[in-house]
Amino acid sequence: MADEVVLLDTWVSMFGMRVRIALAEKGVNYEYKEENLRDKSPLLLQMNPIHKKIPVLIHNGKPITESAIIVQYIDEVWNEKSPILPSDPYQRAQARFWVDYIDKKIYATWRETWLSEGEEHETRRKEFISIFKQLEEALGDNPFYGGDTFGFVDLGLIPFYCWFYTFETYGHFKMEEECPKLIAWAKRCMQRESVSKSLPDEKKVFDFAEAIHKELQSK
Amino acid sequence: MADEVVLLDTWVSMFGMRVRIALAEKGVNYEYKEENLRDKSPLLLQMNPIHKKIPVLIHNGKPITESAIIVQYIDEVWNEKSPILPSDPYQRAQARFWVDYIDKKIYATWRETWLSEGEEHETRRKEFISIFKQLEEALGDNPFYGGDTFGFVDLGLIPFYCWFYTFETYGHFKMEEECPKLIAWAKRCMQRESVSKSLPDEKKVFDFAEAIHKELQSK
Repeated sequence: MADEVVLLDTWVSMFGMRVRIALAEKGVNYEYKEENLRDKSPLLLQMNPIHKKIPVLIHNGKPITESAIIVQYIDEVWNEKSPILPSDPYQRAQARFWVDYIDKKIYATWRETWLSEGEEHETRRKEFISIFKQLEEALGDNPFYGGDTFGFVDLGLIPFYCWFYTFETYGHFKMEEECPKLIAWAKRCMQRESVSKSLPDEKKVFDFAEAIHKELQSK
Repeated sequence: MADEVVLLDTWVSMFGMRVRIALAEKGVNYEYKEENLRDKSPLLLQMNPIHKKIPVLIHNGKPITESAIIVQYIDEVWNEKSPILPSDPYQRAQARFWVDYIDKKIYATWRETWLSEGEEHETRRKEFISIFKQLEEALGDNPFYGGDTFGFVDLGLIPFYCWFYTFETYGHFKMEEECPKLIAWAKRCMQRESVSKSLPDEKKVFDFAEAIHKELQSK
């Protein structure tokens, strides 16, 4: 029986992009279903009743949720090509640590930066930039977080790259100036078809963020 | 060369208890170092410079942090006995989902319940109880979250059991009334020496929480 793979996702989601990249790395064919998060489908509510969030991977009828967990699942099931997590337990723990760091820090601090004003905004934007400086330091002089190869942390972080223009515009900074090595790393990642085909255009992302921002401000 | 294993921990930490249980399950000998979180040791700051938190497992000089990541590391390194994560990828993803749910929900909602008053407290305590009801539903009629055997979710949740008395006292509810199946599950877990020897007495935990609470109130 051929695998039936369905992805419930939203085009602008960094977390959905992780799953798209992982599936592309493994060469898995799947049906993509765009969700409207303001009018969630009965399928999404049925498949992720606890968090009601995308992305959800449905593999032969069974749902897997939370992007970092989905990516590990994909790596374990389609394990014959393009390993995503390292095989060494210590390296695996380190990779999981950095993806966890990304998950705990970037999105929450971004929202606080994006939606705050004045002194609060200034504090948050500095904190936001320091997260990326920390990530750049963790990369060191390696071409990828996976060392010489694209791996779990690369896959976990690169989707944020198409949000950089939005981050920079609202956060009043230039990532190239703050974290030049991180930009060089992102450009290396973008040379992979699995990545470049999974990330939307940064201006389209900005238009999306701007529309939401205006709507929130007018409330 | 014999493994050198050191655990930086604090006796009252649910997250540290997870690591103690995992090491006991695997029969790993280790040196336990109690940390004073108000005066963190140079070793802790050196081994976990990012989060500066316990628990930290130091294995042959190399640090692993974040309790769920440490437990997976222990399971992968000492893989010859007492498997903690299931071998099936889908079951593994489900187990990771529930530990992630526990990590996202319990501690944060507990703090909000504990430190709030009036209407806010009432809202939070209801939310807090609903988390355990959700976890009880996930257990279903199984003896353990791991099915017939004690596994990753059991290990991730059981340390909170020695906090139940504190939760009940500050949250004005009885877990036995709200979640009787969860209490039965906890008692089953407590029959394992790895668990009962890793959890401190609930009254001692309460005294600790009460002292902190008084201190916070007086500020």
